[in-house]
Amino acid sequence: MRFFSDNAAPVSPAVLAALAQVNVVDTAYDADAHSQALDARFSALFETDVRALWVSTGTAANSLALAALCPPHGGIVCHRNAHIQVDECGAPGFFTHGASLMTAAGPGAKLTPEMVRGVIDRIGKSVHNVQPHAVSITNATEYGEVYTPGEVAALGALCRERGLGLHMDGARFANAIAHLGCAPADMTWRAGVDVLSFGFVKNGAMSAEALIFFRPELAEETLYRRKRAGHLLSKGRYLAAQILAMLDGDLWLENARAANAGARLLGDAAGDRLLYPVEANEVFLRVTAAEAASLRALGFDFYDWAEGEARLVTSWNQSVDDIRPLADAIARL
Amino acid sequence: MRFFSDNAAPVSPAVLAALAQVNVVDTAYDADAHSQALDARFSALFETDVRALWVSTGTAANSLALAALCPPHGGIVCHRNAHIQVDECGAPGFFTHGASLMTAAGPGAKLTPEMVRGVIDRIGKSVHNVQPHAVSITNATEYGEVYTPGEVAALGALCRERGLGLHMDGARFANAIAHLGCAPADMTWRAGVDVLSFGFVKNGAMSAEALIFFRPELAEETLYRRKRAGHLLSKGRYLAAQILAMLDGDLWLENARAANAGARLLGDAAGDRLLYPVEANEVFLRVTAAEAASLRALGFDFYDWAEGEARLVTSWNQSVDDIRPLADAIARL
Amino acid sequence: MRFFSDNAAPVSPAVLAALAQVNVVDTAYDADAHSQALDARFSALFETDVRALWVSTGTAANSLALAALCPPHGGIVCHRNAHIQVDECGAPGFFTHGASLMTAAGPGAKLTPEMVRGVIDRIGKSVHNVQPHAVSITNATEYGEVYTPGEVAALGALCRERGLGLHMDGARFANAIAHLGCAPADMTWRAGVDVLSFGFVKNGAMSAEALIFFRPELAEETLYRRKRAGHLLSKGRYLAAQILAMLDGDLWLENARAANAGARLLGDAAGDRLLYPVEANEVFLRVTAAEAASLRALGFDFYDWAEGEARLVTSWNQSVDDIRPLADAIARL
Amino acid sequence: MRFFSDNAAPVSPAVLAALAQVNVVDTAYDADAHSQALDARFSALFETDVRALWVSTGTAANSLALAALCPPHGGIVCHRNAHIQVDECGAPGFFTHGASLMTAAGPGAKLTPEMVRGVIDRIGKSVHNVQPHAVSITNATEYGEVYTPGEVAALGALCRERGLGLHMDGARFANAIAHLGCAPADMTWRAGVDVLSFGFVKNGAMSAEALIFFRPELAEETLYRRKRAGHLLSKGRYLAAQILAMLDGDLWLENARAANAGARLLGDAAGDRLLYPVEANEVFLRVTAAEAASLRALGFDFYDWAEGEARLVTSWNQSVDDIRPLADAIARL
Repeated sequence: MRFFSDNAAPVSPAVLAALAQVNVVDTAYDADAHSQALDARFSALFETDVRALWVSTGTAANSLALAALCPPHGGIVCHRNAHIQVDECGAPGFFTHGASLMTAAGPGAKLTPEMVRGVIDRIGKSVHNVQPHAVSITNATEYGEVYTPGEVAALGALCRERGLGLHMDGARFANAIAHLGCAPADMTWRAGVDVLSFGFVKNGAMSAEALIFFRPELAEETLYRRKRAGHLLSKGRYLAAQILAMLDGDLWLENARAANAGARLLGDAAGDRLLYPVEANEVFLRVTAAEAASLRALGFDFYDWAEGEARLVTSWNQSVDDIRPLADAIARL
Repeated sequence: MRFFSDNAAPVSPAVLAALAQVNVVDTAYDADAHSQALDARFSALFETDVRALWVSTGTAANSLALAALCPPHGGIVCHRNAHIQVDECGAPGFFTHGASLMTAAGPGAKLTPEMVRGVIDRIGKSVHNVQPHAVSITNATEYGEVYTPGEVAALGALCRERGLGLHMDGARFANAIAHLGCAPADMTWRAGVDVLSFGFVKNGAMSAEALIFFRPELAEETLYRRKRAGHLLSKGRYLAAQILAMLDGDLWLENARAANAGARLLGDAAGDRLLYPVEANEVFLRVTAAEAASLRALGFDFYDWAEGEARLVTSWNQSVDDIRPLADAIARL
Repeated sequence: MRFFSDNAAPVSPAVLAALAQVNVVDTAYDADAHSQALDARFSALFETDVRALWVSTGTAANSLALAALCPPHGGIVCHRNAHIQVDECGAPGFFTHGASLMTAAGPGAKLTPEMVRGVIDRIGKSVHNVQPHAVSITNATEYGEVYTPGEVAALGALCRERGLGLHMDGARFANAIAHLGCAPADMTWRAGVDVLSFGFVKNGAMSAEALIFFRPELAEETLYRRKRAGHLLSKGRYLAAQILAMLDGDLWLENARAANAGARLLGDAAGDRLLYPVEANEVFLRVTAAEAASLRALGFDFYDWAEGEARLVTSWNQSVDDIRPLADAIARL
Repeated sequence: MRFFSDNAAPVSPAVLAALAQVNVVDTAYDADAHSQALDARFSALFETDVRALWVSTGTAANSLALAALCPPHGGIVCHRNAHIQVDECGAPGFFTHGASLMTAAGPGAKLTPEMVRGVIDRIGKSVHNVQPHAVSITNATEYGEVYTPGEVAALGALCRERGLGLHMDGARFANAIAHLGCAPADMTWRAGVDVLSFGFVKNGAMSAEALIFFRPELAEETLYRRKRAGHLLSKGRYLAAQILAMLDGDLWLENARAANAGARLLGDAAGDRLLYPVEANEVFLRVTAAEAASLRALGFDFYDWAEGEARLVTSWNQSVDDIRPLADAIARL
């Protein structure tokens, strides 16, 4: 069974069904009713007026968000383990035309105000130095940690004080909300977030993420950037339909809860092998090479993270019954 | 009935079915068997070893192709009516980091060697002048014209002589091949084409185009550029599946033949109202505003192209019976 | 004698003397008193508050100006014979991160409001089309023509109406002002110019041009762009000194008048061989190859512009006596 | 007396004299005999065929060098205290179109092979990760340390093994060579350096640095990049003349020896206040705020580097007699 990545999971049946439902003659690009409905649907969800654009990948969502917040000569503070720093082949540098990522070190992948201050306070205030323009955090983080609304708000306050934009990479935003049960608004704009990459692909969609602007004016230039980057699909209604299907009946939360439950089961079995708290759908374990091999021999597939560490990712489509055999195997190690 | 754009057409049932078929746990990005099969499938189709990458849009395909052929300080010769010049919001400038489009004027949207020479021969040979590095043509063109293999080969020969790369925007490549019935190889690499954007979306796919490198070494850096541009989808198998479904049983040709047949019917009805020969699935008509209004009053939807001109685009899903009422209405004008 | 380019001319003695005068220990970059004096000196000259930055080349000045006026996804309207289009190796594309030059055709190199409207009115109003953000004109033009304040104001009014910025490439601004004897303010901000590249190098300086922002707020980001482009010289006082020496006692006007007088002498001798009116320091002649050769045989060096055309450029250091032999030779042709 | 920066020093009399000597009518850009002489002069100095280009700033030299070695999607390993990382406002990101600087931490600003391996060995080998393409070192470093030829060669060997280019920022190359008395060839290409930014401005020139390509083929595209970046001065002979004057009679070494001698005098006086060995013309001292104030009260000007640290930079124009009062004051602290 695959615990390699939530990208390996299939697509929710409701999403596939939605594709079939919109499979009629319609209007091109994002002029169709489905695409046009996104602003209202997300405004309702977030209890404020937002602009919502579909894109095909989280990398595109993140990079477009950062380009909206940071000029080419500016910098973006992020954790050294952030996806935008490690796993996007420099996409932020491409979309921002060369802005710098300014990394902070620390355990896991969570930023704190102290860490951000540690990065920006040592930067000279002159044209010789790249000036910070934004902070980017990931929630849930790349290590399965969840920021609370309070933690985000502390970063948001610092950003306001220093004139920095705040971006949240929400590739696993659903898992974070499902974990805390809080209002999406509390986790985002009420805490100072300006732009959110709201992920759906890891959580049951096929190829649609949403880019949510809590400062709607930031969306205007992004429309051009999206087109210019080849991300304005000509049959955009098939992306909008995926997102709408995920929002209908809170499928996004239901799927995330399922994935989180699986991870908790594994986390409970892992005990003090855990490297980070299990708050979303990722589990990082201390395992020897022999132990990892023994789990693989049982048919479980996962990622060797670092020397002596393994990453297990659960998905929306894995039931507790599916996962129990792995949990038991871990407990027996 | 919509004759506005082939982007408005629905998705072929076989494509939707293919999405359902790959809807199982698999591997992420392009490591799955479907994505990995593209090289072989297109190599067979083109009778030579090619590298084939999926992307979501024709704009991305075109821009990645141009970035592989032209450095930031170079130029790309194209027709002034080319899609890359008119309709992509400067995407080539984004992906190439600022290369220049060098436009040639002429009827329709077809380039000739004379037109290319007219552009490049007046450019000084010094570092003060942007030097041409590539030529880009569209087949079928934005005006529904089809280049023959001989016409492409004449451009290809000029490109070889001058050290220029040759890109073909094949957003409607299928319509061109269906029109001529020639071998895809004759239209492309045998005629000197280096990179082809092979379009599927207008022809029945949902969100998958293929980027075909006839010089496979050009693909290596493109893999990084694709990722960096946010175009490496995490569930890439759903793109590969669309393309494979279009290739199966030559659905791509079947769909294109249907669209072309519809356009021919309209073209025959239009007589000397035709602005360009009808060789693919687009029909450009001379119509007065009153005539255009009368057609619209009958329920036909289309694009006002320029003063006194209308563009009608037929699609794979429109049968001759569907189209006959419009043909009759045009004939009666 | 060289009539090849005003770039071939030497440096005014007063400029060399100024370099010697500032050759003491001072402060780095642009914090020295000379650099800091530029704002006030140019504000006085232009009768309004301006920001003035030194840079080393006209290409850098033009590109920084355009980057201040146009986003990466925008376009800049210019004449097809403009220096920024023909002779800067795509520098505007580099500094703007890929903005498009939108060229208008017409005699010489002068833009009119009609020509600008001809370019921008055919652009679709959607994210598919690069939207114009600025107009760039050259005064005196690349063909030695001078815009009057009224002509500039007509373009300025159109720019205001359409929300476009207006840049003036003033590589030969001094020659234009010397020709008309008008106030610099009338030629620039009062006519709607937002940013001026004020050239000094062709007119007697060594390596210093001034970038003048009539909307001072546009200068702020430019300070970062200048540094980032490697154009913030560490010993900037030697650039400021050149400019101040050119402003002292109106040396800039004196030098330009000398160069213009030489060109007029040649123009008068040329009679109906003239291709464009001689209003600055450039003379374009109709000459056969044999005639050109005969002039060269007499020791006159110049540029073959196009088939049957020659360009002669006069410089600040050439007296009327120096030039008379060439004038006589042209008259005798 | 100013110990703030060697950028504050005046220009060597020989350099000023050279400007006067070339102040005649000549050819524009870099076609003059002085500019054309650079290849041969530097080839002789480095005992191998090199291409040598003038530029106005070290930032431009460094960035053009890095753009020649690293594609937009690549990375460049450097010390976290490197000038390209800290003090150039992201210029490498601009010239490379978004390449990433990959920083290594360690004392001072010197890289070791271990530090480079520590950065690159943890990078995944996939398109998701920015791949390293080059290493950049500064000699003498930003902290006044000098790499020996052996230390450079160890880095050069690693670069060859891993397929990485090697750039040396030689803003103070002269000080490094003067310190060791070694052959410039041993410090550069024989040790694996591909491109050198050879600084002259800090060492007595006004506005000219040399960019030296030990792999001459790398220079070809750089000619376009230099023009495109606005760094091809129209009166380039005045830059070439500065460099030639610095090379004549080894003025570059003489000036560097003078500056180094001054720094040594300060270093000897500083004793265990020294933070780094004094090998070039920079001295970093541990001083309390009160001590710094007392030195300033005596008329000595310098840079507060970090809490409790001061940076003193000596220049070519300061004699030992000039500097002794400061040395004595430091010794008395």
